[in-house]
Amino acid sequence: MKTLQDYIDKLNALNFKEMYENDFFLTWEKTDDEIEAVFTVADALRYMRENNISTKVFESGLGISLFRDNSTRTRFSFASACNLLGLEVQDLDEGKSQIAHGETVRETANMISFMADVIGIRDDMYIGKGNKYMHDVVDAVKEGHDEGILEQRPTLVNLQCDIDHPTQCMADMLHIIHAFGGVENLKGKKLAMTWAYSPSYGKPLSVPQGVIGLMTRFGMDVVLAHPEGYEVMPEVEEVAKANAAKAGGSFTKTNDMAEAFKDADIVYPKSWAPFAAMEKRTKLYAEGDQAGIDALEQELLAQNAEHKDWACTEDMMKLTRDGKALYLHCLPADISGVSCETGEVDASVFDRYRTPLYKEASFKPYIIAAMIFLSKFENPQEILKKLEERGTKRVFG
Amino acid sequence: MKTLQDYIDKLNALNFKEMYENDFFLTWEKTDDEIEAVFTVADALRYMRENNISTKVFESGLGISLFRDNSTRTRFSFASACNLLGLEVQDLDEGKSQIAHGETVRETANMISFMADVIGIRDDMYIGKGNKYMHDVVDAVKEGHDEGILEQRPTLVNLQCDIDHPTQCMADMLHIIHAFGGVENLKGKKLAMTWAYSPSYGKPLSVPQGVIGLMTRFGMDVVLAHPEGYEVMPEVEEVAKANAAKAGGSFTKTNDMAEAFKDADIVYPKSWAPFAAMEKRTKLYAEGDQAGIDALEQELLAQNAEHKDWACTEDMMKLTRDGKALYLHCLPADISGVSCETGEVDASVFDRYRTPLYKEASFKPYIIAAMIFLSKFENPQEILKKLEERGTKRVFG
Amino acid sequence: MKTLQDYIDKLNALNFKEMYENDFFLTWEKTDDEIEAVFTVADALRYMRENNISTKVFESGLGISLFRDNSTRTRFSFASACNLLGLEVQDLDEGKSQIAHGETVRETANMISFMADVIGIRDDMYIGKGNKYMHDVVDAVKEGHDEGILEQRPTLVNLQCDIDHPTQCMADMLHIIHAFGGVENLKGKKLAMTWAYSPSYGKPLSVPQGVIGLMTRFGMDVVLAHPEGYEVMPEVEEVAKANAAKAGGSFTKTNDMAEAFKDADIVYPKSWAPFAAMEKRTKLYAEGDQAGIDALEQELLAQNAEHKDWACTEDMMKLTRDGKALYLHCLPADISGVSCETGEVDASVFDRYRTPLYKEASFKPYIIAAMIFLSKFENPQEILKKLEERGTKRVFG
Repeated sequence: MKTLQDYIDKLNALNFKEMYENDFFLTWEKTDDEIEAVFTVADALRYMRENNISTKVFESGLGISLFRDNSTRTRFSFASACNLLGLEVQDLDEGKSQIAHGETVRETANMISFMADVIGIRDDMYIGKGNKYMHDVVDAVKEGHDEGILEQRPTLVNLQCDIDHPTQCMADMLHIIHAFGGVENLKGKKLAMTWAYSPSYGKPLSVPQGVIGLMTRFGMDVVLAHPEGYEVMPEVEEVAKANAAKAGGSFTKTNDMAEAFKDADIVYPKSWAPFAAMEKRTKLYAEGDQAGIDALEQELLAQNAEHKDWACTEDMMKLTRDGKALYLHCLPADISGVSCETGEVDASVFDRYRTPLYKEASFKPYIIAAMIFLSKFENPQEILKKLEERGTKRVFG
Repeated sequence: MKTLQDYIDKLNALNFKEMYENDFFLTWEKTDDEIEAVFTVADALRYMRENNISTKVFESGLGISLFRDNSTRTRFSFASACNLLGLEVQDLDEGKSQIAHGETVRETANMISFMADVIGIRDDMYIGKGNKYMHDVVDAVKEGHDEGILEQRPTLVNLQCDIDHPTQCMADMLHIIHAFGGVENLKGKKLAMTWAYSPSYGKPLSVPQGVIGLMTRFGMDVVLAHPEGYEVMPEVEEVAKANAAKAGGSFTKTNDMAEAFKDADIVYPKSWAPFAAMEKRTKLYAEGDQAGIDALEQELLAQNAEHKDWACTEDMMKLTRDGKALYLHCLPADISGVSCETGEVDASVFDRYRTPLYKEASFKPYIIAAMIFLSKFENPQEILKKLEERGTKRVFG
Repeated sequence: MKTLQDYIDKLNALNFKEMYENDFFLTWEKTDDEIEAVFTVADALRYMRENNISTKVFESGLGISLFRDNSTRTRFSFASACNLLGLEVQDLDEGKSQIAHGETVRETANMISFMADVIGIRDDMYIGKGNKYMHDVVDAVKEGHDEGILEQRPTLVNLQCDIDHPTQCMADMLHIIHAFGGVENLKGKKLAMTWAYSPSYGKPLSVPQGVIGLMTRFGMDVVLAHPEGYEVMPEVEEVAKANAAKAGGSFTKTNDMAEAFKDADIVYPKSWAPFAAMEKRTKLYAEGDQAGIDALEQELLAQNAEHKDWACTEDMMKLTRDGKALYLHCLPADISGVSCETGEVDASVFDRYRTPLYKEASFKPYIIAAMIFLSKFENPQEILKKLEERGTKRVFG
């Protein structure tokens, strides 16, 4: 793409009108056109920023963030996206506010939203809870808007739930698209989403699920590999199968990491906890059974330790296409000999891919900004054009 | 009101020149015209936001917030108000900064205010302390401004003190005005500010005090009802009496909730701690007497529990005018069977009033913004006009 | 100075082209012209703010702050500086993000910087660590920028390290310049940087080091006074000596506070920990030797207590030139009888200098803003001129 008009022309060919005044929960709830619209607006916003054209579309307004888990990358990505569009981030720190489930979600959601244009939530710890919580918040603010309490309808951006991690996986995917020179070059490429050993415990499933739920839409051959017992949510596997059938690619599973890596064009080796164990943990937490939680942790760490051979080593990388598959990770990775004794990836592999890995991450603020943009403007093409015409510089000069 | 000019015309008929470069501590320190000016500017700012006209009057500047108590609603209202006008909120987290009383208040107040246009403080826990602390801060920054340390004079907005909760009560009042179709329709209406049972302990008195201190100014018959022993500050009762006499309404007291609810047009049932107990607690805290504090808590909870019949039940609501009094609450309410076993209000009553309750809360950001606006501009009418002429949209398009 | 053009003319006579796209670590790494450029831009920005001219040069962009020590003054100064230029502050709270040393610094620095224009860091607790950490961050983001990960190159502002406290000392210095009516009046003036007793423990050395490293550049006679055993870093003393030689002033040391105060024009009495003790403490922390740390603390407090006579008393002040030396402090001071029983300064001395002390502090936001400004614009004179021509008011009207 050379000019902003190229992005606008691309948008003109897509149907994404349902995104207006809507939310972003799961990628597979969006059409192919809608997914492509997000990528296109993300690229357009990046193009404009690189060319010092301000994309500030809000003179005032808040972006509310609610993180129920520690976060650096996603926190700063959300803050960057809001800032790029002119929204000020206000963090809802539950320690300072005691938001609770049930009746109170409905109330708090409205109380914080009088001037909120977007709400970003990370809630990934408990199976069956995070995505549901996001829906509760959205239902509450939609109702509040319909009843005239809220002058605007705050948009939800899912910053990671128990099912999907759409801003991460779409950033990953946009990185792939750029790395391969366009979505049209992905047909028949092999992508291996594989489990990898980590000495830590209880990593969420939202990344592997998000990856197989999204990346099966582009005609690639997507392989999900993990040791027995590390299954992901069956519903998401069904999504992946259906996607692959529709897109003319494939979705397969294996318990053999080497098989997955064999001739792969893209590899995404990453640890996660077994779905069944996460469900069990959610139940133990609900019951307040600390002894049970501790026992489960020991059990899972022991189970993990049986699979230390699941690592993205130099030998494993040699199996990939020309030994040069694109290595992906959502970061931070557990790097053998660096952040832990034995981990997900060899230090030499990680080092070789450091720059592309950081570039992969750099798409996330733009993906989030694009999601907001598409939910706020009925005709984003016109807005992009007008922003270019306005010509306000991001940095004065 | 149909046009911005209507609000401007209304302001032209009021005298509020003392509000310029001034602070907002207690509603009864303000004239009737000044109170009406706040309502009018609040409505005008809301009108402009609803019509997508930016009210950003600051290109830079900080709004400092200092919360000495947990807060969601007021925190987000203050942040929203600042953002609406173009100020960036910086929270003075005392845990991170160790502001102390005495000499250091004077110093810290100046150190945080070099680019502060407004300071919002919540300090409601200790009788005789909160309002005094706000005055100490204001004295310090006024002196700092007079001595050329601070280029601008930061304005204080009282976000709740031990005496009054002006932003809450003025939001409540603006809600009443809108609900009854104008301040001119309030004469002779009966408002019941009544105590209600809550299983929690030590709720501040600033809301009942703020309500009787403000709502006696509009010709209404205001009844304060509570069990014996739950008296509020006598000085504020004197304010309420004087207001009522001047406005041609009445201020009466009763220890009978049903009597207060009888034929009431507006009811505000809410728990609070006895004034005398709060004074005692303040003393115990000052002495660091934890055993005394614990004993007092048990004593107060036991005392509360004797009055579980003070609840806004369906039967109680039937006593009000046509059984349809406007139900008010500052939120969050203790809802029987929802947030607690027995509380301030029946779930069915609360549910029926949910939408108006949330609307009541929605006025707070505008009330705060109006207080700031009136303290910053000598001729706010002219500024409103110029903002309309500038015509910058809040959301680009 | 009467007009903005005066500041621009002054800048035109200086060579500071190396500051563009550069960082601010230590004052003695900057040329005299560069130091003067910071003062000049700081004054120009203050002039513009006082004349209600907006200096907002960023339409979007983040200012990242990272405080590894409690802070009020510097935190708000950094926030004010960023806000003045249009950057939104995002605090990297390590408790919420677990940034670590080594490999991870490189990664986190990039992950938070996708839309960061400036990074401000305070890391002053451990000898040999803070400045090094800042360099690690800068190396990481420079590399990230070179490799196309970061579209812009974030600038570092040292908000206090183990070696220097440049924003503090330059604010102190600009205060001196204004107090004496210009840098040209400082030749031959005597400045006493002296240790003073405090009942607290482990205060950083960055202020005395920063003072002798900076204030020896202006032809003054700078005396460093402290009890035996309270030596500062020898490298910085070498800097001070070289500066004095070059500037035609002097740098001397004494163990006699009265000797330092004798005929001084400026005094800066302030507590700090011995360099050797700080080195020892750093080692104990690295070893996790809590017993050793506790023992060292007791030892240092006992050592301090031997020097309670090192205080800025009225008698001591009488020794200064006409008894009227300009008293400086970075604040907060330990004031005898106010914040502690016996401290750095008599209450009556402190009170007499309160207003100038607060003015001294008021320069810090402008110093920080000037450092950012000079690193972001190749031709700041042109930008200042254009901002004046743009004529956007800071406060609308």
